[in-house]
Amino acid sequence: MRPIVLLSDFGLTDPYVGLMKSAIVSVAPTAPLVDLTHAIPPQDIRAGALVLHHALPHLPHDAVVVAVVDPGVGGPRRPIVLETAHALLLGPDNGLLSGAVAPDARRRAIAITESRYFRHPVSRTFHGRDIFAPVAAHLASGLEPSALGPEAGSLVEMPLPHARPEANGVSGEITYVDRFGNLVTNVAAETLGDAIDDVTVDVPGHRPTPLVPAYASVPAGEVLAVVNSWGLIEIAVRDGSAARRLGAGIGTAVRVRRGRTSPR
Amino acid sequence: MRPIVLLSDFGLTDPYVGLMKSAIVSVAPTAPLVDLTHAIPPQDIRAGALVLHHALPHLPHDAVVVAVVDPGVGGPRRPIVLETAHALLLGPDNGLLSGAVAPDARRRAIAITESRYFRHPVSRTFHGRDIFAPVAAHLASGLEPSALGPEAGSLVEMPLPHARPEANGVSGEITYVDRFGNLVTNVAAETLGDAIDDVTVDVPGHRPTPLVPAYASVPAGEVLAVVNSWGLIEIAVRDGSAARRLGAGIGTAVRVRRGRTSPR
Amino acid sequence: MRPIVLLSDFGLTDPYVGLMKSAIVSVAPTAPLVDLTHAIPPQDIRAGALVLHHALPHLPHDAVVVAVVDPGVGGPRRPIVLETAHALLLGPDNGLLSGAVAPDARRRAIAITESRYFRHPVSRTFHGRDIFAPVAAHLASGLEPSALGPEAGSLVEMPLPHARPEANGVSGEITYVDRFGNLVTNVAAETLGDAIDDVTVDVPGHRPTPLVPAYASVPAGEVLAVVNSWGLIEIAVRDGSAARRLGAGIGTAVRVRRGRTSPR
Repeated sequence: MRPIVLLSDFGLTDPYVGLMKSAIVSVAPTAPLVDLTHAIPPQDIRAGALVLHHALPHLPHDAVVVAVVDPGVGGPRRPIVLETAHALLLGPDNGLLSGAVAPDARRRAIAITESRYFRHPVSRTFHGRDIFAPVAAHLASGLEPSALGPEAGSLVEMPLPHARPEANGVSGEITYVDRFGNLVTNVAAETLGDAIDDVTVDVPGHRPTPLVPAYASVPAGEVLAVVNSWGLIEIAVRDGSAARRLGAGIGTAVRVRRGRTSPR
Repeated sequence: MRPIVLLSDFGLTDPYVGLMKSAIVSVAPTAPLVDLTHAIPPQDIRAGALVLHHALPHLPHDAVVVAVVDPGVGGPRRPIVLETAHALLLGPDNGLLSGAVAPDARRRAIAITESRYFRHPVSRTFHGRDIFAPVAAHLASGLEPSALGPEAGSLVEMPLPHARPEANGVSGEITYVDRFGNLVTNVAAETLGDAIDDVTVDVPGHRPTPLVPAYASVPAGEVLAVVNSWGLIEIAVRDGSAARRLGAGIGTAVRVRRGRTSPR
Repeated sequence: MRPIVLLSDFGLTDPYVGLMKSAIVSVAPTAPLVDLTHAIPPQDIRAGALVLHHALPHLPHDAVVVAVVDPGVGGPRRPIVLETAHALLLGPDNGLLSGAVAPDARRRAIAITESRYFRHPVSRTFHGRDIFAPVAAHLASGLEPSALGPEAGSLVEMPLPHARPEANGVSGEITYVDRFGNLVTNVAAETLGDAIDDVTVDVPGHRPTPLVPAYASVPAGEVLAVVNSWGLIEIAVRDGSAARRLGAGIGTAVRVRRGRTSPR
């Protein structure tokens, strides 16, 4: 039985996630279930795609991923399955899956049309429960994606914001802020190559922050930059909140440059 | 092994839900566990009954449901099991289960008295951990409800607020507001029969809102009404919050009338 | 397969808990998973130790506990396994586990050094995903703790605040406030022996509160004291919040004295 991983903007206050899991358990009672997060901001497709993108390399092999950030539910947008080398992703064709999986990592995409795998009657407001959850449970139980419908053809695209190489570094932005107030940028450590051990991060209006190996490399209360667990440059405050300290958030520009000197 | 579904007002900040699950896992380690919600407002029996009522048709077949909103714990109120055609519900006899299951849907009710299935010592403050969770695990493992005690006789009743038919429609109220700010009424679509495709919803002080097929039927930012996934009339704002826009909440009166004309 | 119990300060908004579970499922897909709580305040090692300490007697037998409140991740602090009669606890050697398990309840402690059981590459910021989760999954699958590394020797200690016996009772403090606003003290009922049925709790600036059997022993809105489900004296308001009513919180001094008379 393949594991099923869930991501949504449903929150945990309402019973919506529990109803999706009920639909899964009805079909595949022994499939391992993992909640990635249900706290994607309401209708924020881009935020969902970002989290999914960075989580994908760390999901269990052969995971079936159900991703639901779906403001167009009940309208013409299609339910799809997107296959990668290691996972099957189900969700609306609204950029959520295409944003998470770059074109060269896609094996094929199927438009889900075979209603025999749906829960009936199918509501017009909750395809998470009526389509995506039961179909995921069938896939986890061994159903071939091709049984779900025809090839999807081209998908709705919504690329994530990319960092831009510059003369002496990389220019990017903050794309995620976590519970600790850590400011996650879209600058991947690997884009800096061997220079990564000797870079400085600039946030406009603040002192340059040298990259250090770990949070624990500086005393409590100090601002630092690290390579985080997604392989991205992150700005943090040891035992504190960088979001609060720097007054920065999603969209704030950052620049990562080689060397430890002050900016020119 | 029957699946176990949990609903409570414990929240997810404290370890109470984890301790209930620990008690379940100790008895029935392979039973599938589904959290319906733990965010029922503290001590709000009616809110718990409402969510449970609308979730019941969508739970896995043969589910064992543990419902704990239990301000009278440790006092004379009885722990009971309520049997329906498709589920066993455990909880305090305080209206939580009787509110969720109409009299004609009840098969029998048992007063739980057989302490051999409890966790010992039984605390005076946390029967979720000491009585309901372990008993549910035994039921999920195949125990007959009749082994738990005698027939319960009449239950403490706490009916949910009913909508009232009127000359040209139905008069009801908002009974639930979800994370998206969607305003869920107690007006079931089926009470409007075939007229459902041509009705208008009135909220005092606001323009009449025609019912549309789905959120996606209107442009972003517009108020709409739909039949939601519980089969109820719901007022929403596309990609926004109807609760904020209309300043409405639980208890706000609504009227659903046939036709698309303005109200007289 | 041994059950795995998780406690952290990661919250449920970010995908960190889901990524830990993904790492577990990759190794031990059938191990039962229980979330104790992920709402420990960020970096609050003492709060994590307190919750863990009181939960331990109620966890499933032979549980493997993953506890991550780890501000020193990536620095010199060691990852350890602490063995008790009924559980294996994994976490950083920063007081989290030693605070939860008194010295006489420890069987042995192992410093985790065998990187073959880690997830690679090991990040410098998220050992929950890269070390603790996969190692826990191997332990749940039957790995001997001694295979993980050498004996740890002495641990970093961080004892929880103890209550102090007095002439006519016990002097303590509030150490935990739950979602209901219940004020949990560090005064164990057993320290008062048979006198427990006849004690009074004093909070400075408030009327003495007699201990009663249960929340339901007093009318709605009244202040009361009970022995809670952790065996501790707790101050509550029936159907209300004692934290709000008394303006009290973590660190507030309390005194529990024998008898029902007014304080001298």
